[in-house]
Amino acid sequence: MKFGIYLPEVALRRKKCPVLYWLSGLTCTEQNFVSKAGAQRYAAEHGIIVVAPDTSPRGNNVPDSPDYDLGQGAGFYVNAKREPWAKHFRMYDYVAFELPALIESEFASSEARSISGHSMGGHGALVVALRNPGRYRSVSAFSPIVAPSQVPWGQKALAAYLGDDREAWKQYDAVELVGNASERLPLLVDQGGDDEFLNTQLRPQLLKEAGEKAGYSVQINMREGYDHSYYFIASFMREHMAFHAKVLT
Amino acid sequence: MKFGIYLPEVALRRKKCPVLYWLSGLTCTEQNFVSKAGAQRYAAEHGIIVVAPDTSPRGNNVPDSPDYDLGQGAGFYVNAKREPWAKHFRMYDYVAFELPALIESEFASSEARSISGHSMGGHGALVVALRNPGRYRSVSAFSPIVAPSQVPWGQKALAAYLGDDREAWKQYDAVELVGNASERLPLLVDQGGDDEFLNTQLRPQLLKEAGEKAGYSVQINMREGYDHSYYFIASFMREHMAFHAKVLT
Repeated sequence: MKFGIYLPEVALRRKKCPVLYWLSGLTCTEQNFVSKAGAQRYAAEHGIIVVAPDTSPRGNNVPDSPDYDLGQGAGFYVNAKREPWAKHFRMYDYVAFELPALIESEFASSEARSISGHSMGGHGALVVALRNPGRYRSVSAFSPIVAPSQVPWGQKALAAYLGDDREAWKQYDAVELVGNASERLPLLVDQGGDDEFLNTQLRPQLLKEAGEKAGYSVQINMREGYDHSYYFIASFMREHMAFHAKVLT
Repeated sequence: MKFGIYLPEVALRRKKCPVLYWLSGLTCTEQNFVSKAGAQRYAAEHGIIVVAPDTSPRGNNVPDSPDYDLGQGAGFYVNAKREPWAKHFRMYDYVAFELPALIESEFASSEARSISGHSMGGHGALVVALRNPGRYRSVSAFSPIVAPSQVPWGQKALAAYLGDDREAWKQYDAVELVGNASERLPLLVDQGGDDEFLNTQLRPQLLKEAGEKAGYSVQINMREGYDHSYYFIASFMREHMAFHAKVLT
Protein backbone atom coordinates (compact mmCIF):
# COMPACT_ATOMS: atom_id res chain seq x y z
CA MET A 1 0.00 0.00 0.00
CA LYS A 2 1.28 3.44 -0.94
CA PHE A 3 0.34 6.60 0.88
CA GLY A 4 1.20 10.26 0.61
CA ILE A 5 2.43 12.06 3.71
CA TYR A 6 3.14 15.72 4.36
CA LEU A 7 5.33 16.50 7.35
CA PRO A 8 5.33 20.14 8.42
CA GLU A 9 8.72 21.50 9.42
CA VAL A 10 7.83 21.31 13.10
CA ALA A 11 7.27 17.54 12.75
CA LEU A 12 10.89 17.07 11.76
CA ARG A 13 12.00 18.57 15.05
CA ARG A 14 9.55 16.90 17.43
CA LYS A 15 7.33 13.94 16.69
CA LYS A 16 4.23 15.27 18.34
CA CYS A 17 2.15 16.68 15.55
CA PRO A 18 -1.52 15.78 15.15
CA VAL A 19 -2.56 13.98 11.99
CA LEU A 20 -5.29 14.64 9.45
CA TYR A 21 -6.18 11.62 7.32
CA TRP A 22 -7.51 12.30 3.85
CA LEU A 23 -9.53 9.71 1.93
CA SER A 24 -9.78 10.21 -1.83
CA GLY A 25 -12.56 9.44 -4.26
CA LEU A 26 -13.19 6.96 -7.06
CA THR A 27 -10.25 6.34 -9.44
CA CYS A 28 -7.79 8.30 -7.29
CA THR A 29 -4.44 7.12 -6.00
CA GLU A 30 -2.47 8.58 -3.10
CA GLN A 31 -1.21 11.25 -5.52
CA ASN A 32 -4.35 13.25 -6.39
CA PHE A 33 -4.74 15.01 -3.09
CA VAL A 34 -1.01 15.51 -2.68
CA SER A 35 -0.58 17.33 -5.99
CA LYS A 36 -3.93 19.08 -6.48
CA ALA A 37 -5.49 20.13 -3.17
CA GLY A 38 -2.92 22.70 -2.07
CA ALA A 39 -3.24 21.55 1.54
CA GLN A 40 0.46 21.65 2.43
CA ARG A 41 0.66 25.37 3.05
CA TYR A 42 -2.20 25.30 5.56
CA ALA A 43 -0.87 22.12 7.17
CA ALA A 44 2.47 23.87 7.60
CA GLU A 45 0.84 26.89 9.20
CA HIS A 46 -1.07 24.75 11.69
CA GLY A 47 1.64 22.13 12.26
CA ILE A 48 -0.52 19.23 11.12
CA ILE A 49 0.72 16.06 9.43
CA VAL A 50 -1.46 15.05 6.47
CA VAL A 51 -1.70 11.41 5.39
CA ALA A 52 -3.40 10.45 2.12
CA PRO A 53 -3.78 6.69 1.51
CA ASP A 54 -4.58 5.06 -1.81
CA THR A 55 -8.25 4.19 -2.48
CA SER A 56 -7.79 0.41 -2.66
CA PRO A 57 -5.23 -2.35 -2.71
CA ARG A 58 -3.37 -2.53 -6.04
CA GLY A 59 -1.41 -5.00 -8.10
CA ASN A 60 -1.64 -7.85 -10.57
CA ASN A 61 -2.56 -10.32 -7.85
CA VAL A 62 -5.36 -8.13 -6.52
CA PRO A 63 -8.88 -8.65 -7.94
CA ASP A 64 -10.23 -5.90 -10.16
CA SER A 65 -13.23 -5.02 -12.28
CA PRO A 66 -13.35 -3.29 -15.66
CA ASP A 67 -15.64 -0.66 -14.12
CA TYR A 68 -14.16 2.52 -12.65
CA ASP A 69 -16.47 2.28 -9.64
CA LEU A 70 -15.59 -1.23 -8.46
CA GLY A 71 -12.32 -2.94 -7.58
CA GLN A 72 -8.94 -1.21 -7.76
CA GLY A 73 -9.35 2.53 -7.22
CA ALA A 74 -12.78 1.98 -5.70
CA GLY A 75 -12.37 0.25 -2.35
CA PHE A 76 -15.23 2.20 -0.79
CA TYR A 77 -13.54 1.96 2.63
CA VAL A 78 -15.28 -1.28 3.61
CA ASN A 79 -14.09 -4.67 4.83
CA ALA A 80 -15.30 -6.86 1.98
CA LYS A 81 -17.07 -10.14 2.81
CA ARG A 82 -17.71 -11.52 -0.64
CA GLU A 83 -15.33 -13.17 -3.09
CA PRO A 84 -13.19 -12.30 -4.97
CA TRP A 85 -12.78 -9.21 -2.78
CA ALA A 86 -12.71 -10.52 0.79
CA LYS A 87 -8.99 -11.22 1.05
CA HIS A 88 -7.54 -7.89 -0.11
CA PHE A 89 -10.30 -5.30 0.11
CA ARG A 90 -10.19 -4.44 3.79
CA MET A 91 -9.90 -0.68 3.44
CA TYR A 92 -11.98 0.09 6.53
CA ASP A 93 -9.52 -1.64 8.83
CA TYR A 94 -6.62 -0.22 6.86
CA VAL A 95 -7.58 3.45 7.09
CA ALA A 96 -9.08 3.31 10.59
CA PHE A 97 -6.44 1.18 12.35
CA GLU A 98 -3.52 -0.27 10.39
CA LEU A 99 -2.34 2.91 8.76
CA PRO A 100 -2.75 5.10 11.89
CA ALA A 101 -0.74 2.55 13.89
CA LEU A 102 2.08 2.81 11.35
CA ILE A 103 1.92 6.61 11.18
CA GLU A 104 1.86 7.03 14.93
CA SER A 105 4.78 4.68 15.35
CA GLU A 106 6.94 6.18 12.61
CA PHE A 107 6.00 9.84 12.23
CA ALA A 108 3.54 11.28 14.69
CA SER A 109 3.70 9.84 18.22
CA SER A 110 0.37 11.57 18.74
CA GLU A 111 -3.14 10.23 19.00
CA ALA A 112 -4.70 13.53 17.98
CA ARG A 113 -6.44 12.53 14.76
CA SER A 114 -9.00 14.02 12.42
CA ILE A 115 -10.28 12.71 9.12
CA SER A 116 -11.56 14.16 5.88
CA GLY A 117 -12.19 13.10 2.31
CA HIS A 118 -13.84 13.66 -1.04
CA SER A 119 -16.83 11.91 -2.62
CA MET A 120 -16.29 8.15 -1.94
CA GLY A 121 -13.59 9.34 0.47
CA GLY A 122 -16.03 11.73 2.14
CA HIS A 123 -18.24 8.70 2.72
CA GLY A 124 -15.24 6.86 4.14
CA ALA A 125 -14.30 9.71 6.46
CA LEU A 126 -17.83 10.07 7.84
CA VAL A 127 -18.22 6.33 8.38
CA VAL A 128 -14.84 5.82 10.02
CA ALA A 129 -15.36 8.78 12.36
CA LEU A 130 -18.96 7.99 13.30
CA ARG A 131 -18.20 4.33 14.00
CA ASN A 132 -15.27 5.04 16.31
CA PRO A 133 -16.37 7.42 19.06
CA GLY A 134 -13.45 9.21 20.70
CA ARG A 135 -10.95 8.13 18.06
CA TYR A 136 -11.17 11.28 15.92
CA ARG A 137 -11.50 14.87 17.06
CA SER A 138 -13.32 16.12 13.98
CA VAL A 139 -14.52 14.97 10.58
CA SER A 140 -15.11 16.85 7.36
CA ALA A 141 -16.00 15.98 3.80
CA PHE A 142 -16.18 17.52 0.36
CA SER A 143 -19.05 16.29 -1.82
CA PRO A 144 -19.49 13.06 0.17
CA ILE A 145 -21.63 10.07 -0.72
CA VAL A 146 -23.66 10.37 2.49
CA ALA A 147 -26.11 7.52 1.91
CA PRO A 148 -24.49 4.76 -0.17
CA SER A 149 -27.42 2.44 0.51
CA GLN A 150 -29.66 4.81 -1.44
CA VAL A 151 -27.57 5.76 -4.48
CA PRO A 152 -26.20 3.82 -7.50
CA TRP A 153 -22.45 4.07 -6.70
CA GLY A 154 -23.01 2.85 -3.17
CA GLN A 155 -25.54 0.16 -3.98
CA LYS A 156 -23.25 -1.35 -6.59
CA ALA A 157 -20.20 -1.33 -4.31
CA LEU A 158 -21.93 -2.50 -1.14
CA ALA A 159 -23.69 -5.35 -2.97
CA ALA A 160 -20.42 -6.47 -4.53
CA TYR A 161 -18.26 -6.20 -1.43
CA LEU A 162 -20.77 -7.11 1.31
CA GLY A 163 -23.57 -9.04 -0.40
CA ASP A 164 -27.29 -8.48 -0.46
CA ASP A 165 -27.92 -8.28 3.31
CA ARG A 166 -28.88 -4.65 3.64
CA GLU A 167 -28.51 -4.76 7.41
CA ALA A 168 -24.76 -5.14 6.87
CA TRP A 169 -24.77 -2.04 4.69
CA LYS A 170 -25.91 0.16 7.56
CA GLN A 171 -22.48 0.06 9.17
CA TYR A 172 -21.16 1.79 6.06
CA ASP A 173 -23.84 4.45 5.63
CA ALA A 174 -23.33 7.83 7.27
CA VAL A 175 -27.02 8.68 7.18
CA GLU A 176 -27.74 5.47 9.12
CA LEU A 177 -24.85 6.06 11.51
CA VAL A 178 -25.40 9.72 12.35
CA GLY A 179 -28.66 8.98 14.15
CA ASN A 180 -26.95 6.52 16.48
CA ALA A 181 -23.74 8.41 17.10
CA SER A 182 -22.81 8.15 20.76
CA GLU A 183 -20.24 10.95 20.41
CA ARG A 184 -21.01 14.05 18.42
CA LEU A 185 -17.71 15.16 17.04
CA PRO A 186 -17.58 18.36 14.97
CA LEU A 187 -18.81 17.50 11.47
CA LEU A 188 -18.42 19.76 8.42
CA VAL A 189 -19.51 19.18 4.83
CA ASP A 190 -18.90 21.36 1.78
CA GLN A 191 -20.89 20.61 -1.36
CA GLY A 192 -20.72 22.28 -4.77
CA GLY A 193 -24.06 23.47 -6.11
CA ASP A 194 -23.10 22.66 -9.72
CA ASP A 195 -21.77 19.19 -8.88
CA GLU A 196 -22.98 16.82 -11.61
CA PHE A 197 -23.46 14.05 -9.03
CA LEU A 198 -25.33 16.17 -6.50
CA ASN A 199 -28.83 14.74 -6.88
CA THR A 200 -27.96 11.25 -8.09
CA GLN A 201 -25.05 10.04 -5.95
CA LEU A 202 -24.43 12.54 -3.14
CA ARG A 203 -27.75 13.89 -1.80
CA PRO A 204 -26.41 15.83 1.20
CA GLN A 205 -29.94 16.78 2.28
CA LEU A 206 -30.30 13.18 3.53
CA LEU A 207 -27.48 13.80 6.00
CA LYS A 208 -28.95 17.14 6.99
CA GLU A 209 -32.34 15.56 7.69
CA ALA A 210 -30.85 12.64 9.59
CA GLY A 211 -28.78 15.05 11.68
CA GLU A 212 -31.79 17.21 12.46
CA LYS A 213 -33.85 14.18 13.42
CA ALA A 214 -31.11 13.04 15.80
CA GLY A 215 -30.39 16.50 17.17
CA TYR A 216 -26.82 16.27 15.84
CA SER A 217 -25.66 19.66 14.58
CA VAL A 218 -24.15 18.97 11.17
CA GLN A 219 -22.73 21.90 9.20
CA ILE A 220 -23.38 21.59 5.48
CA ASN A 221 -22.21 24.46 3.27
CA MET A 222 -23.73 24.59 -0.20
CA ARG A 223 -21.30 26.39 -2.52
CA GLU A 224 -23.05 27.68 -5.60
CA GLY A 225 -21.20 27.36 -8.90
CA TYR A 226 -18.68 24.77 -7.73
CA ASP A 227 -18.35 21.33 -9.29
CA HIS A 228 -17.05 17.92 -8.14
CA SER A 229 -13.38 18.58 -8.95
CA TYR A 230 -10.20 19.18 -6.98
CA TYR A 231 -10.57 22.87 -7.88
CA PHE A 232 -13.53 22.88 -5.50
CA ILE A 233 -11.50 21.14 -2.82
CA ALA A 234 -8.58 23.56 -3.24
CA SER A 235 -10.99 26.49 -2.95
CA PHE A 236 -12.08 25.53 0.56
CA MET A 237 -9.09 23.58 1.83
CA ARG A 238 -8.00 26.48 4.03
CA GLU A 239 -11.37 26.48 5.80
CA HIS A 240 -11.35 22.71 6.33
CA MET A 241 -7.81 22.77 7.66
CA ALA A 242 -8.74 25.57 10.07
CA PHE A 243 -11.83 23.61 11.15
CA HIS A 244 -9.68 20.62 12.09
CA ALA A 245 -6.87 22.72 13.56
CA LYS A 246 -9.26 24.25 16.06
CA VAL A 247 -9.61 20.91 17.84
CA LEU A 248 -6.30 19.30 16.85
CA THR A 249 -3.76 21.90 17.92
CA MET B 1 -3.11 26.54 -29.15
CA LYS B 2 -4.66 25.72 -25.80
CA PHE B 3 -4.28 27.87 -22.73
CA GLY B 4 -5.52 27.76 -19.16
CA ILE B 5 -7.26 30.84 -17.78
CA TYR B 6 -8.45 31.68 -14.29
CA LEU B 7 -11.01 34.45 -14.00
CA PRO B 8 -11.55 35.78 -10.49
CA GLU B 9 -15.16 36.48 -9.60
CA VAL B 10 -14.66 40.22 -10.02
CA ALA B 11 -13.63 39.64 -13.65
CA LEU B 12 -17.06 38.20 -14.41
CA ARG B 13 -18.68 41.45 -13.34
CA ARG B 14 -16.34 43.98 -14.92
CA LYS B 15 -13.70 43.28 -17.56
CA LYS B 16 -10.98 45.39 -16.03
CA CYS B 17 -8.77 42.94 -14.21
CA PRO B 18 -5.01 42.89 -14.69
CA VAL B 19 -3.43 39.73 -16.09
CA LEU B 20 -0.55 37.59 -14.92
CA TYR B 21 0.90 35.36 -17.65
CA TRP B 22 2.50 32.11 -16.52
CA LEU B 23 4.99 30.24 -18.71
CA SER B 24 5.58 26.60 -17.85
CA GLY B 25 8.68 24.46 -18.11
CA LEU B 26 9.87 21.57 -20.26
CA THR B 27 7.30 18.82 -20.96
CA CYS B 28 4.42 20.83 -19.47
CA THR B 29 1.10 21.63 -21.09
CA GLU B 30 -1.31 24.39 -20.12
CA GLN B 31 -2.60 22.04 -17.38
CA ASN B 32 0.36 21.68 -15.00
CA PHE B 33 0.21 25.15 -13.51
CA VAL B 34 -3.58 25.15 -13.43
CA SER B 35 -3.86 21.97 -11.39
CA LYS B 36 -0.72 22.00 -9.26
CA ALA B 37 0.37 25.54 -8.35
CA GLY B 38 -2.59 26.52 -6.16
CA ALA B 39 -2.52 30.05 -7.60
CA GLN B 40 -6.26 30.51 -7.98
CA ARG B 41 -6.96 31.39 -4.36
CA TYR B 42 -4.40 34.20 -4.36
CA ALA B 43 -5.52 35.40 -7.78
CA ALA B 44 -9.07 35.57 -6.44
CA GLU B 45 -7.97 37.58 -3.41
CA HIS B 46 -6.10 40.10 -5.56
CA GLY B 47 -8.55 40.17 -8.47
CA ILE B 48 -5.96 39.05 -11.02
CA ILE B 49 -6.64 36.99 -14.14
CA VAL B 50 -4.07 34.23 -14.66
CA VAL B 51 -3.30 32.90 -18.13
CA ALA B 52 -1.16 29.79 -18.63
CA PRO B 53 -0.30 28.95 -22.26
CA ASP B 54 1.04 25.64 -23.50
CA THR B 55 4.81 25.32 -23.91
CA SER B 56 4.82 24.80 -27.69
CA PRO B 57 2.59 24.25 -30.68
CA ARG B 58 1.13 20.73 -30.77
CA GLY B 59 -0.30 18.29 -33.23
CA ASN B 60 0.50 15.62 -35.79
CA ASN B 61 1.41 18.23 -38.40
CA VAL B 62 3.79 20.05 -36.08
CA PRO B 63 7.47 19.01 -36.09
CA ASP B 64 8.73 17.18 -33.02
CA SER B 65 11.82 15.50 -31.65
CA PRO B 66 12.10 12.29 -29.63
CA ASP B 67 13.91 14.29 -26.93
CA TYR B 68 11.92 15.81 -24.07
CA ASP B 69 13.93 19.03 -24.32
CA LEU B 70 13.33 19.85 -27.99
CA GLY B 71 10.17 20.20 -30.11
CA GLN B 72 6.68 19.76 -28.72
CA GLY B 73 6.60 20.62 -25.03
CA ALA B 74 9.90 22.49 -25.35
CA GLY B 75 9.32 25.64 -27.42
CA PHE B 76 11.77 27.66 -25.33
CA TYR B 77 9.76 30.84 -26.03
CA VAL B 78 11.74 31.75 -29.15
CA ASN B 79 10.81 32.57 -32.74
CA ALA B 80 12.55 29.73 -34.53
CA LYS B 81 14.58 30.51 -37.66
CA ARG B 82 15.74 27.05 -38.66
CA GLU B 83 13.83 24.22 -40.31
CA PRO B 84 11.83 22.19 -39.53
CA TRP B 85 10.83 24.53 -36.69
CA ALA B 86 10.54 27.96 -38.32
CA LYS B 87 6.92 27.75 -39.42
CA HIS B 88 5.24 26.68 -36.17
CA PHE B 89 7.65 27.41 -33.34
CA ARG B 90 7.04 31.13 -32.81
CA MET B 91 6.39 31.01 -29.09
CA TYR B 92 8.02 34.38 -28.38
CA ASP B 93 5.54 36.24 -30.55
CA TYR B 94 2.72 34.07 -29.27
CA VAL B 95 3.24 34.68 -25.57
CA ALA B 96 4.37 38.31 -25.85
CA PHE B 97 1.80 39.59 -28.39
CA GLU B 98 -0.69 37.19 -29.96
CA LEU B 99 -2.05 35.69 -26.77
CA PRO B 100 -2.23 39.01 -24.84
CA ALA B 101 -4.15 40.56 -27.76
CA LEU B 102 -6.68 37.74 -27.57
CA ILE B 103 -6.94 37.87 -23.78
CA GLU B 104 -7.33 41.62 -23.69
CA SER B 105 -9.99 41.53 -26.34
CA GLU B 106 -12.01 38.68 -24.86
CA PHE B 107 -11.45 38.69 -21.09
CA ALA B 108 -9.46 41.52 -19.62
CA SER B 109 -9.84 44.88 -21.36
CA SER B 110 -6.80 45.92 -19.39
CA GLU B 111 -3.19 46.46 -20.36
CA ALA B 112 -1.91 45.88 -16.84
CA ARG B 113 0.28 42.82 -17.35
CA SER B 114 2.87 40.90 -15.41
CA ILE B 115 4.63 37.68 -16.29
CA SER B 116 6.08 34.73 -14.43
CA GLY B 117 7.20 31.20 -15.11
CA HIS B 118 9.12 28.10 -14.08
CA SER B 119 12.43 26.75 -15.38
CA MET B 120 12.25 27.08 -19.20
CA GLY B 121 9.21 29.26 -18.52
CA GLY B 122 11.17 31.37 -16.06
CA HIS B 123 13.64 31.96 -18.87
CA GLY B 124 10.73 32.89 -21.13
CA ALA B 125 9.22 35.30 -18.61
CA LEU B 126 12.52 37.10 -18.00
CA VAL B 127 13.29 37.39 -21.72
CA VAL B 128 9.83 38.59 -22.72
CA ALA B 129 9.75 41.19 -19.93
CA LEU B 130 13.29 42.48 -20.42
CA ARG B 131 12.88 42.81 -24.21
CA ASN B 132 9.66 44.81 -23.99
CA PRO B 133 10.18 47.83 -21.75
CA GLY B 134 6.93 49.25 -20.45
CA ARG B 135 4.87 46.28 -21.53
CA TYR B 136 4.96 44.41 -18.20
CA ARG B 137 4.76 45.87 -14.72
CA SER B 138 6.72 43.11 -13.02
CA VAL B 139 8.41 39.79 -13.74
CA SER B 140 9.11 36.82 -11.52
CA ALA B 141 10.47 33.34 -11.98
CA PHE B 142 10.85 30.05 -10.14
CA SER B 143 14.05 28.14 -10.86
CA PRO B 144 14.64 29.91 -14.20
CA ILE B 145 17.20 29.07 -16.86
CA VAL B 146 18.82 32.49 -16.62
CA ALA B 147 21.63 31.98 -19.15
CA PRO B 148 20.55 29.54 -21.87
CA SER B 149 23.66 30.38 -23.92
CA GLN B 150 25.80 28.89 -21.17
CA VAL B 151 23.94 25.70 -20.18
CA PRO B 152 23.13 22.41 -21.98
CA TRP B 153 19.31 22.78 -22.18
CA GLY B 154 19.62 26.24 -23.65
CA GLN B 155 22.52 25.54 -25.98
CA LYS B 156 20.70 22.57 -27.48
CA ALA B 157 17.46 24.48 -27.98
CA LEU B 158 18.95 27.73 -29.24
CA ALA B 159 21.20 25.91 -31.71
CA ALA B 160 18.27 23.89 -33.04
CA TYR B 161 15.78 26.74 -33.27
CA LEU B 162 18.07 29.66 -34.13
CA GLY B 163 21.22 28.15 -35.62
CA ASP B 164 24.84 28.56 -34.66
CA ASP B 165 25.04 32.37 -34.74
CA ARG B 166 25.56 33.10 -31.07
CA GLU B 167 24.80 36.79 -31.56
CA ALA B 168 21.20 35.79 -32.27
CA TRP B 169 21.07 33.86 -29.00
CA LYS B 170 21.67 37.00 -26.96
CA GLN B 171 18.11 38.19 -27.54
CA TYR B 172 16.94 35.09 -25.70
CA ASP B 173 19.33 35.17 -22.78
CA ALA B 174 18.27 37.01 -19.61
CA VAL B 175 21.85 37.39 -18.38
CA GLU B 176 22.70 39.15 -21.64
CA LEU B 177 19.54 41.25 -21.57
CA VAL B 178 19.57 42.39 -17.96
CA GLY B 179 22.66 44.51 -18.50
CA ASN B 180 21.02 46.45 -21.32
CA ALA B 181 17.54 46.82 -19.83
CA SER B 182 16.28 50.34 -20.51
CA GLU B 183 13.47 49.91 -17.98
CA ARG B 184 14.11 48.24 -14.66
CA LEU B 185 10.87 46.58 -13.79
CA PRO B 186 10.58 44.74 -10.45
CA LEU B 187 12.26 41.35 -10.86
CA LEU B 188 11.94 38.48 -8.39
CA VAL B 189 13.46 34.99 -8.55
CA ASP B 190 12.94 32.07 -6.18
CA GLN B 191 15.32 29.14 -6.43
CA GLY B 192 15.34 25.88 -4.49
CA GLY B 193 18.64 25.03 -2.85
CA ASP B 194 18.16 21.28 -3.44
CA ASP B 195 17.17 21.69 -7.09
CA GLU B 196 18.91 18.94 -9.06
CA PHE B 197 19.42 21.35 -11.99
CA LEU B 198 20.76 24.23 -9.91
CA ASN B 199 24.42 24.15 -10.94
CA THR B 200 24.08 22.57 -14.37
CA GLN B 201 21.12 24.27 -16.08
CA LEU B 202 19.94 27.17 -13.90
CA ARG B 203 22.91 28.97 -12.32
CA PRO B 204 21.04 31.95 -10.82
CA GLN B 205 24.30 33.50 -9.61
CA LEU B 206 24.95 34.51 -13.24
CA LEU B 207 21.82 36.68 -13.14
CA LYS B 208 22.78 38.07 -9.76
CA GLU B 209 26.24 39.04 -11.03
CA ALA B 210 24.90 40.52 -14.26
CA GLY B 211 22.36 42.54 -12.27
CA GLU B 212 25.00 43.81 -9.87
CA LYS B 213 27.28 44.78 -12.74
CA ALA B 214 24.45 46.72 -14.36
CA GLY B 215 23.20 48.26 -11.14
CA TYR B 216 19.84 46.52 -11.63
CA SER B 217 18.46 45.40 -8.28
CA VAL B 218 17.40 41.80 -8.82
CA GLN B 219 15.86 39.91 -5.90
CA ILE B 220 16.94 36.25 -5.82
CA ASN B 221 15.70 34.16 -2.90
CA MET B 222 17.54 30.90 -2.30
CA ARG B 223 15.19 28.47 -0.57
CA GLU B 224 17.09 25.73 1.18
CA GLY B 225 15.66 22.24 0.96
CA TYR B 226 13.34 22.89 -1.98
CA ASP B 227 13.58 21.05 -5.29
CA HIS B 228 12.57 21.78 -8.91
CA SER B 229 8.95 20.61 -8.56
CA TYR B 230 5.54 22.23 -8.46
CA TYR B 231 5.57 21.67 -4.69
CA PHE B 232 8.24 24.36 -4.57
CA ILE B 233 6.15 26.65 -6.75
CA ALA B 234 3.04 26.08 -4.63
CA SER B 235 5.05 26.87 -1.50
CA PHE B 236 5.86 30.41 -2.64
CA MET B 237 3.00 31.17 -5.00
CA ARG B 238 1.36 33.44 -2.44
CA GLU B 239 4.51 35.59 -2.25
CA HIS B 240 4.86 35.80 -6.03
CA MET B 241 1.22 36.72 -6.46
CA ALA B 242 1.56 39.43 -3.80
CA PHE B 243 4.72 40.72 -5.52
CA HIS B 244 2.83 41.16 -8.78
CA ALA B 245 -0.34 42.46 -7.14
CA LYS B 246 1.58 45.32 -5.57
CA VAL B 247 2.12 46.89 -9.00
CA LEU B 248 -0.86 45.39 -10.86
CA THR B 249 -3.77 46.37 -8.65
